[in-house]
Amino acid sequence: MKFLHTSDWHLGRQFHNVSLLDDQQAVLEQLISYLENNPVDALVIAGDIYDRSVPPTSAIELMNHFVEKVCGEMKLPVIIIPGNHDGAQRLGFAASQMKSSGLHIIANFDDMLTPVVINSDIGEVAFYGMPYNDPELVRHYTKQPAKDHDQAHQLLLEKIREQFKPQQKNVLLSHCFVDGAIESESERPLSIGGSDRVSHEHFVEFDYVALGHLHQPQKKGEEYIRYSGSLMKYSFSEQHQAKGMTLVELDQNGFQSATHIPLTAPHQMRIIEGELATLIEQGKTDPNSHDYILARLMDKHAILDPMEKLRKVYPNVLHLEKPGMLIGVDQQMGKARLARGELDMFKDFFLEAKQEPLNSQQEQAVSEIISKLTRQQEA
Amino acid sequence: MKFLHTSDWHLGRQFHNVSLLDDQQAVLEQLISYLENNPVDALVIAGDIYDRSVPPTSAIELMNHFVEKVCGEMKLPVIIIPGNHDGAQRLGFAASQMKSSGLHIIANFDDMLTPVVINSDIGEVAFYGMPYNDPELVRHYTKQPAKDHDQAHQLLLEKIREQFKPQQKNVLLSHCFVDGAIESESERPLSIGGSDRVSHEHFVEFDYVALGHLHQPQKKGEEYIRYSGSLMKYSFSEQHQAKGMTLVELDQNGFQSATHIPLTAPHQMRIIEGELATLIEQGKTDPNSHDYILARLMDKHAILDPMEKLRKVYPNVLHLEKPGMLIGVDQQMGKARLARGELDMFKDFFLEAKQEPLNSQQEQAVSEIISKLTRQQEA
Repeated sequence: MKFLHTSDWHLGRQFHNVSLLDDQQAVLEQLISYLENNPVDALVIAGDIYDRSVPPTSAIELMNHFVEKVCGEMKLPVIIIPGNHDGAQRLGFAASQMKSSGLHIIANFDDMLTPVVINSDIGEVAFYGMPYNDPELVRHYTKQPAKDHDQAHQLLLEKIREQFKPQQKNVLLSHCFVDGAIESESERPLSIGGSDRVSHEHFVEFDYVALGHLHQPQKKGEEYIRYSGSLMKYSFSEQHQAKGMTLVELDQNGFQSATHIPLTAPHQMRIIEGELATLIEQGKTDPNSHDYILARLMDKHAILDPMEKLRKVYPNVLHLEKPGMLIGVDQQMGKARLARGELDMFKDFFLEAKQEPLNSQQEQAVSEIISKLTRQQEA
Repeated sequence: MKFLHTSDWHLGRQFHNVSLLDDQQAVLEQLISYLENNPVDALVIAGDIYDRSVPPTSAIELMNHFVEKVCGEMKLPVIIIPGNHDGAQRLGFAASQMKSSGLHIIANFDDMLTPVVINSDIGEVAFYGMPYNDPELVRHYTKQPAKDHDQAHQLLLEKIREQFKPQQKNVLLSHCFVDGAIESESERPLSIGGSDRVSHEHFVEFDYVALGHLHQPQKKGEEYIRYSGSLMKYSFSEQHQAKGMTLVELDQNGFQSATHIPLTAPHQMRIIEGELATLIEQGKTDPNSHDYILARLMDKHAILDPMEKLRKVYPNVLHLEKPGMLIGVDQQMGKARLARGELDMFKDFFLEAKQEPLNSQQEQAVSEIISKLTRQQEA
């Protein structure tokens, strides 16, 4: 019995004001293509389908197209829980009416207690989905104290375990932060101060736990308690993370294996570092020059419009950093100080703009203006 | 063969900053209760389920509850088209996955050409839904010129008629403005300058046409081309409109009858008119004092905080008009002029606040202040 585990699609996400929808569409097409060539018994998505509770129409249409293809044409059961980015009620509209078509959106506590049962070569496998909920909602539902996410999970899992049937294998979908797992920059914290951490111990009775929320693929505590990671990279700091989905195999004894299946977005997110001239030279022959780029310029002098220059070879430079221009961070002021003074900066600028250096008379004049402005600022 | 025709629910609508959701819920419960006692073969909703393309979560939950009850428990087919207030793509998410449960949301042109076929005692009845579209979208879809709503309807109806099957009766759902029909204040115009009008002639080949958009129940051109009107009143000017739904009966020959089934919101919307003291007296014994009230005060003198006074007997006064205080409207300025001068107004106010009249010294002082202010204003 095989199923695909994926999570954190964040459809409709913007990255430095660029829509990632075309990349997301391309990655979903790879996913569909994988399914066509490698039949499985189900696809599970452990939350954060959309990036916002009210997603843009274009993201809804992309998801609709995916569902049409996978549930409608390929007749593959798809099991979904909302994550902290999704709007559970919006995502869950008419969920009961979708079930018979194989689209299972588990958006509330009642649905949580009725697993999606898949009949397979190893018998029945029950998929329980725990829709993302903060402890407040769990207190309201269970009428029991739950001061943090860990206690909330414990209470909900007790209710789920009561539903276990001896002849069934049990899979759980949960969108949460398992204690000790590795964060990425593109996740939105569930709460402040560590009260969002959940112990992996709650999960050990399941045959597999399909986790969502953290964007780096990883296991936690046991081989069968896993994050698939996000559909694609959502921050430059994820440049070296392997993105994709997890192919899970169960057998008569339960968990058998988990395999990472890579997915590759057309534009990778990566950081390039060096002096502008070097980067431009390198860009001319870079086969992936269309990637989404964060450029760290190491030049120690000011440059006129470096973004425009760099975009001639790397058209999708989304952000520039100029560490070469900084000499450490002024802790007290919380501000970075410039390594070069104003006069030197202006001389750089003038040379670049006019193609000739300042003459001594001009330098004198600029110097006086800067002194005057500096005195005014300090007064 | 019987079905219920309704439209223009506008779930989530606000009226003078009051949420109408509780009233809408109560009316939907009446609708469900009617269905429980009077079985029909289908329920059709001709657009404007929600009041906005991004409805509030509470409105989505109310609609979800309704669908659960009617499609899920009662197993009654429900056929829906989006109106000009709805967001077709949002409403239509996973529509294909809902069909097998009897929930048919016809949100795009492709679905328009595949009718929902209901098998009944008179044989097959095909329900075609024309989701609301402006002419621009119809031009794009048909690749033919359509300068206005009338031509757009004509083009779409040609495509629909090509699907007609000899053994089927044909019902159409459309959200549009049929030429010559009566408007209400609470509708949002489809376009400006009359280009939204559609001829009823396009519809004559159907056995019944379930229209939405106009809020007053009415037929147009033929007995079988009808607006059910809105679920409830959505403006004070609708105070005398009968609200409800239309029970349609078809027989072997097609259309047989249409019957208005009334629905009553817990709070009616109505206008009361008279002097404040009279209205307060009348309110003390008014059995419907909780209605949503527009009060027209006919008093000719200024009154301190009339809203607060009136709300003691009519707690849901939502708006006040003071025609007694106006002597016609200054056409040139577009402003209403007050019938009483500033000094008289202040005397009214002082008497009411202090329970004693201005003495002559006070009157002199106030008069001087008013003169001074008036001179300043005119200068």
